[in-house]
Amino acid sequence: MKSCDLLIRNGRVMPMVEPGQVLEGASVAVVGQRIQAVGPEAEQYRSQNVIDATGRAVLPGLVNAHCHAPMTLFRGLANDRALMDWLQNYIFPAEAAEVDQELVRWGSRLACLEMIQAGITTVADMYYFESTVAEEFAAAGLRGVLGQALVDFPVPDARSFEEGVANVRAFARDWKGHHLITPAVAPHAPYTVSEAHLRESRRLADELELPLMTHLAETRTETEQTARDHQGLSPTAYLESIGFFGPRTLAAHVVWADEADIARLARAGVGVAHCPHSNMKLASGVAPVLALLRAGVAVGLGTDGPASNNDLDPWQELQTAIFLQKVTALDPTALPAGQALQMATSLGARAVSLGHEVGTLEAGKRADLIIVSLDGAHQLPVYDLASTLAYTTRASDVRTVVIDGRVVMEERQVVSVHLEGLLDRVADYADRIRKRVLH
Amino acid sequence: MKSCDLLIRNGRVMPMVEPGQVLEGASVAVVGQRIQAVGPEAEQYRSQNVIDATGRAVLPGLVNAHCHAPMTLFRGLANDRALMDWLQNYIFPAEAAEVDQELVRWGSRLACLEMIQAGITTVADMYYFESTVAEEFAAAGLRGVLGQALVDFPVPDARSFEEGVANVRAFARDWKGHHLITPAVAPHAPYTVSEAHLRESRRLADELELPLMTHLAETRTETEQTARDHQGLSPTAYLESIGFFGPRTLAAHVVWADEADIARLARAGVGVAHCPHSNMKLASGVAPVLALLRAGVAVGLGTDGPASNNDLDPWQELQTAIFLQKVTALDPTALPAGQALQMATSLGARAVSLGHEVGTLEAGKRADLIIVSLDGAHQLPVYDLASTLAYTTRASDVRTVVIDGRVVMEERQVVSVHLEGLLDRVADYADRIRKRVLH
Repeated sequence: MKSCDLLIRNGRVMPMVEPGQVLEGASVAVVGQRIQAVGPEAEQYRSQNVIDATGRAVLPGLVNAHCHAPMTLFRGLANDRALMDWLQNYIFPAEAAEVDQELVRWGSRLACLEMIQAGITTVADMYYFESTVAEEFAAAGLRGVLGQALVDFPVPDARSFEEGVANVRAFARDWKGHHLITPAVAPHAPYTVSEAHLRESRRLADELELPLMTHLAETRTETEQTARDHQGLSPTAYLESIGFFGPRTLAAHVVWADEADIARLARAGVGVAHCPHSNMKLASGVAPVLALLRAGVAVGLGTDGPASNNDLDPWQELQTAIFLQKVTALDPTALPAGQALQMATSLGARAVSLGHEVGTLEAGKRADLIIVSLDGAHQLPVYDLASTLAYTTRASDVRTVVIDGRVVMEERQVVSVHLEGLLDRVADYADRIRKRVLH
Repeated sequence: MKSCDLLIRNGRVMPMVEPGQVLEGASVAVVGQRIQAVGPEAEQYRSQNVIDATGRAVLPGLVNAHCHAPMTLFRGLANDRALMDWLQNYIFPAEAAEVDQELVRWGSRLACLEMIQAGITTVADMYYFESTVAEEFAAAGLRGVLGQALVDFPVPDARSFEEGVANVRAFARDWKGHHLITPAVAPHAPYTVSEAHLRESRRLADELELPLMTHLAETRTETEQTARDHQGLSPTAYLESIGFFGPRTLAAHVVWADEADIARLARAGVGVAHCPHSNMKLASGVAPVLALLRAGVAVGLGTDGPASNNDLDPWQELQTAIFLQKVTALDPTALPAGQALQMATSLGARAVSLGHEVGTLEAGKRADLIIVSLDGAHQLPVYDLASTLAYTTRASDVRTVVIDGRVVMEERQVVSVHLEGLLDRVADYADRIRKRVLH
């Protein structure tokens, strides 16, 4: 027998390498931060740390491919309003007045707690003070591709685009190479960042060797405005025309994209974060997920920020993604459970440019995995594991979460997030924000 | 001080009588099976049974306006298939071979457990052997409007429509007047029951003074077939033309209805069960919920059977109902949280013809209520209670459930469902069904 640092035993293991594959009664052996063996080879290992996964599913940790973690503190602030009313009269004033490093710290901590409880192990995030988000993720043991936001107007952490660039450089200097954190460059959107600055963002990503992420083609308004400002181009065609696409590029939303746009994204290897709840709640539209997948685009699932969702629940995104494609195509065979699970794991990992490290359970990859109970009244009986996971499993069914070889939640107890004072601080912020914007 | 049998103290009470009303730090006093007082008047009561609801929401129990409870045992059986393939090659053969009184008993028991855990207190159900469903509901303490199914072809509990009618008569004789169970007449659909038998179903409901329920206008195929068979009429116009609509009539789905159909339903006072997950999963289409509500139709929310959903989760139906209307209308103000909560409670109760007894917290009504925690990481902060309940609250946040004055779940422990042997029987049925239909 060989020894390992952590052994998960006797689970229903879905490596997510081959579609639909389930290793019954199988083990996963972890050494250090990485998976040492999966399935038959893992049976040769013993460990002083054994987790019994009998009757439970073991699968790669879920990837949240688009988030604004600190915005937990704005969750549920003025819902059911027209987009511009909501943004301009509630969210923007609240952000302008309240967002500072401290808010970002506490909002991120709450988000880390929620996401770990839901089985998320990797998050692509985008906000201000992203180095503070990085501190919180690192402390919580959560993996992040963290985009420091860049926009053309003054924002809480930068009076200008140039100050934003300086923030990116400092962020990269401090965090590049961290085992959990991948700093990224995050120009907000084609309509909030000028052409020159979008080009500069691309150059910066290349120079610093960082991923690049942006919002793209989210609303019809954006599409119309881009066409007006850029010779009739779609947002996707516009970004392609200015050389924005390149290695490790992530586009969030991509609702308003036609076949030509989809071909552009596929050609450039751009990853897409599909955010069904946000797209529905904000009435943005229905993303062409089936066509994107057919074209070979790596489409992950994103919660978007909790202000526009309002939770960070990958299981609901997964189920809604399936349902929304089926009803839009009027085709019950569209986006089957197994393919949607890939979006939540392996495809999501590729979308956020971490496909070589996470997203599947394979020897050599980072040990990011979750153990999910299958005996809830709402789950029984289990005819097909993928179907049970996609259609009936809830965040509350995630029992144990391992990230980078570290058990961050065990039997629903999150052990990695510093909880002291958290609920009080959240309540304090809510009081302040309520007083400022809800009259 | 006056005394009562059960006192819920210091909750954030939403009576669902006036839109958006929240009674902070309020009490609900229960005497026997009924609510004695809510809010200030309830403060005069003391009790030996006190439930502290500090920091929690107290609201009417949720109404599941359309279900096929015993079908839990077919949950997840062959998903992601075309509707006719799924029905004819999996569900119908499984039902024909396996459905008997015993299957209905165990399937219903599992459904009762799941629904109580999710905060459902009233269910409109429709299946075979519905008197056995009634036994299970009554034992579990769950309120039901239970429709004995009628169809023109042989089914597990009747070789003919006439035998089905005899079943209805026996069911009504045995159960009418029960404090939890309302027997109902349930002709399956306009396309499985002849015109003569639909007319007879109406007469039977009138004679026995029972509610009448059916599936209506679920798919485009049904609409086309009805037009072909009945002089170009829509399914709704057809049922109106034969005098099917009357007092206490419930129509499930109503996806394919135009303004004229909606006016027909409103005029006749027909209740509608909107089933967004089922409609999306089976790719039936998007029901015109906004227009139905505008016309004054009582629209409740239904899970449909667990084979086509695949769970019995009213919170997800609530959220999806909102999201689906917003994205379909491309209007983020459509179906706000408070209105959707009405669908899940007061409107749902009216839809299933129990609006005089349940659906709101008011003195004199049946004591059906739920206590919901509000301190999950996914719920915080709480800016607006309706928004928190509609957008971020999950079935797992329901802590305590009271039905007809009886505490059936306390701090997530269901005390009313007889659990012994349940999981083993579910596993046995799953093995048999798997062997029969999954090759």
